[in-house]
Amino acid sequence: MSMNIQLPAPVTWQEASSETRAKLLSRPVQAVSAALREQVAAIIDKVASEGDAALLELTARFDGVRLQSPELSMDKVAEIAEQAPARVKAAIDQAYNNIRAFHLAQKPSDVALETMPGVYCEQKFAALARVGLYIPGGSASLPSTVLMLGVPAQIAECSERVLISPPNPQGELTPAICYAAIKCGVTGVYLGGGAQAVAALALGTESIPAVDKIFGPGNSYVTEAKQQVSQRAGGPAIDLPAGPSELLVIADDSAEPAFVAADLLSQAEHGPDSQVILLSPSAAMIAAVREALAKQLATLPRAEITNQALASSSLILTQDLAEAVAISETYAPEHLSLQLDDCEPWLPKLTRAGSIFVGHYTPESGGDYATGTNHVLPTYGFARNYSSLGLLDFYRRYTVQTVSPEGLADLGNTIVDLAAEEALDAHLRAVSLRLESTRFQRDTQK
Amino acid sequence: MSMNIQLPAPVTWQEASSETRAKLLSRPVQAVSAALREQVAAIIDKVASEGDAALLELTARFDGVRLQSPELSMDKVAEIAEQAPARVKAAIDQAYNNIRAFHLAQKPSDVALETMPGVYCEQKFAALARVGLYIPGGSASLPSTVLMLGVPAQIAECSERVLISPPNPQGELTPAICYAAIKCGVTGVYLGGGAQAVAALALGTESIPAVDKIFGPGNSYVTEAKQQVSQRAGGPAIDLPAGPSELLVIADDSAEPAFVAADLLSQAEHGPDSQVILLSPSAAMIAAVREALAKQLATLPRAEITNQALASSSLILTQDLAEAVAISETYAPEHLSLQLDDCEPWLPKLTRAGSIFVGHYTPESGGDYATGTNHVLPTYGFARNYSSLGLLDFYRRYTVQTVSPEGLADLGNTIVDLAAEEALDAHLRAVSLRLESTRFQRDTQK
Repeated sequence: MSMNIQLPAPVTWQEASSETRAKLLSRPVQAVSAALREQVAAIIDKVASEGDAALLELTARFDGVRLQSPELSMDKVAEIAEQAPARVKAAIDQAYNNIRAFHLAQKPSDVALETMPGVYCEQKFAALARVGLYIPGGSASLPSTVLMLGVPAQIAECSERVLISPPNPQGELTPAICYAAIKCGVTGVYLGGGAQAVAALALGTESIPAVDKIFGPGNSYVTEAKQQVSQRAGGPAIDLPAGPSELLVIADDSAEPAFVAADLLSQAEHGPDSQVILLSPSAAMIAAVREALAKQLATLPRAEITNQALASSSLILTQDLAEAVAISETYAPEHLSLQLDDCEPWLPKLTRAGSIFVGHYTPESGGDYATGTNHVLPTYGFARNYSSLGLLDFYRRYTVQTVSPEGLADLGNTIVDLAAEEALDAHLRAVSLRLESTRFQRDTQK
Repeated sequence: MSMNIQLPAPVTWQEASSETRAKLLSRPVQAVSAALREQVAAIIDKVASEGDAALLELTARFDGVRLQSPELSMDKVAEIAEQAPARVKAAIDQAYNNIRAFHLAQKPSDVALETMPGVYCEQKFAALARVGLYIPGGSASLPSTVLMLGVPAQIAECSERVLISPPNPQGELTPAICYAAIKCGVTGVYLGGGAQAVAALALGTESIPAVDKIFGPGNSYVTEAKQQVSQRAGGPAIDLPAGPSELLVIADDSAEPAFVAADLLSQAEHGPDSQVILLSPSAAMIAAVREALAKQLATLPRAEITNQALASSSLILTQDLAEAVAISETYAPEHLSLQLDDCEPWLPKLTRAGSIFVGHYTPESGGDYATGTNHVLPTYGFARNYSSLGLLDFYRRYTVQTVSPEGLADLGNTIVDLAAEEALDAHLRAVSLRLESTRFQRDTQK
């Protein structure tokens, strides 16, 4: 293969202008064109008015497969699952066990407290009733995403757990996806992709139940459709704002250049807009990683895509590790890898990341598949204000309060005085009328 | 006062057509006009390009107050706070204590688990760094909203806790708001309202720091501005989708008609689009509540607004309590009041509500102010898929994993086989290259 390998030149942070610094950490612009927005809105309207027929027509148009029904029966799913190779089944079993164990440990507990005598407050967690799990299609089969969405939905015991994914040319899903879906006990499997699949989950069709929350990654049509349906009055909730994938590695002289390069490449291969950044206080390490990148890149099947992503990435020489840590906290990467002999002192300072990979033997791909953590993570700087997907995202919290007559006698003045301050008289009277009632006299003399 | 009191006629659920049933539970349409959307977008653009100057100009235009600076210094806030009447201070103190106690009890714990030998996974909670608390202005002072947003931000120890609220005619905020702000230890107080205040929090100005998440209720401009800024690339998160306030009461013959009427009125007085629903298996109770409503309404200062809200509300006769409970679960009210002698059997079946008020002596206004629960709740049916505001909303969750060389030796095949299934070679090589390295040989022989 002959390819013009494009690796960014290393830049010294201390010597960089503020413009250069901003450019080094800038993300690819995610412009949603008005045309795309309108196209997605039209697809949603079409699914809203025509239901299954719209979904089947759009699946024929965009996925090139003409189906009789969007449903893949659970019997058929189980049958296809059996065809998965033993190695793939074993890998899914192990990943499932780790993901299940880690998400089970996240199980929330209700809170109950008597805030004052006679005033009882509770916070309760209820599983979302109906969740929709979108699994992207395209060139590859993505059983890992089935596990990342399906396992927490299963632990939460969401009563409807509906999976939708674009069909392969046979009008089915891969054995690996079916095997993972069976492991997670999904309650329904449907065929469809893009904005039309999201619309079907949001609005329901003759075959597909409408859901309360939509989870899962996707292309720009899927992302825009999730945004649009979540903005509708009474629309479903969605998991996270989406963006291209990112990895930031902090490495010192203790790192293994080949390991660092392999991790940077594994992130870069996701797509041409993936972003990878290396921060190191060691010029020798940066040079060695650069060399390893060129060597490893040459032998990768997805070298073209990977090369494009690398071309817009950054290799940054920092003064010391403290500066690298500060830059990472500003950037707030989706994935953060620490390839240092001694990570402990830095971990308390590093919180702005979706997921952190500690030490030389924790490849980023470990978290993508099998350590147990979730791979649905905030990207595009959203690690500063959004959470990594976890079990809690499959629950709602609501509160319950119970006030005894005696409790109201004690708390009443507080409510009355605040309602008066806020000029809400009916609020005030709901208390005063109770306290002045003959029933209150009776009930407090019991 | 002469007013044409408009109370809805009671409807028997079993006799209602499906159209009538849908209408009884339908919510006021929340149409955002294209004009409002464009006006809000223009305001956001103006604040983005002109900063403080834009905010001051728009405050002069919409709030009728010409300010020198949008900042109200913390010294000034403390000085104004002192002017609050003793009764109001005492009420805020008591409400603060209850809200603080209940939100402290919600403190999350980090999770740590060895999912396999040598594979350590952690889920950690980090407070959001910078939060913006929007407090609506208008006719009344709303110290309760300061507490509902400020107390959890204080417990989480968000490092910047910025409050913004429209100025009163003196170019200040009320003593009660200032007193509550001081109690919650907010770090900055600013003057501004509407879309321009939301834009200032989202984008920052010369005076106002940009924040990571915006909390708080507001009118249609505020709501639309929150939606728009949260959709921007790298924009702030927001708390909840907004809608008009709602109360659903389930009452049986054990209820006190005057108490039920008082609660329905306290919800209806919020605004003409507020919605109140009474469900009861007792025709006598519905008739008695109707009578009490007319009697109490006549003496309320906000009777006009309240009357409008009542006109579009529903009084529904159900077959039994089970039917009432099922209707409530379909409607998913923001506030749910159970005025029954025996609530216990029904509570496990009632989870789709923002907050539940149990028994005859738990007025809905108790939760608005002082029981300890939060009054920022999902409305408009969002109680089926969004959470009531709580301490967790002031944190982000992120994960950390550490794999030992031995752990990678055990987990490696799983990652390799899944990466092969997903055709992501660089992901695979990040593992195989480590396992085949001389460094791995050395590190596992230690």
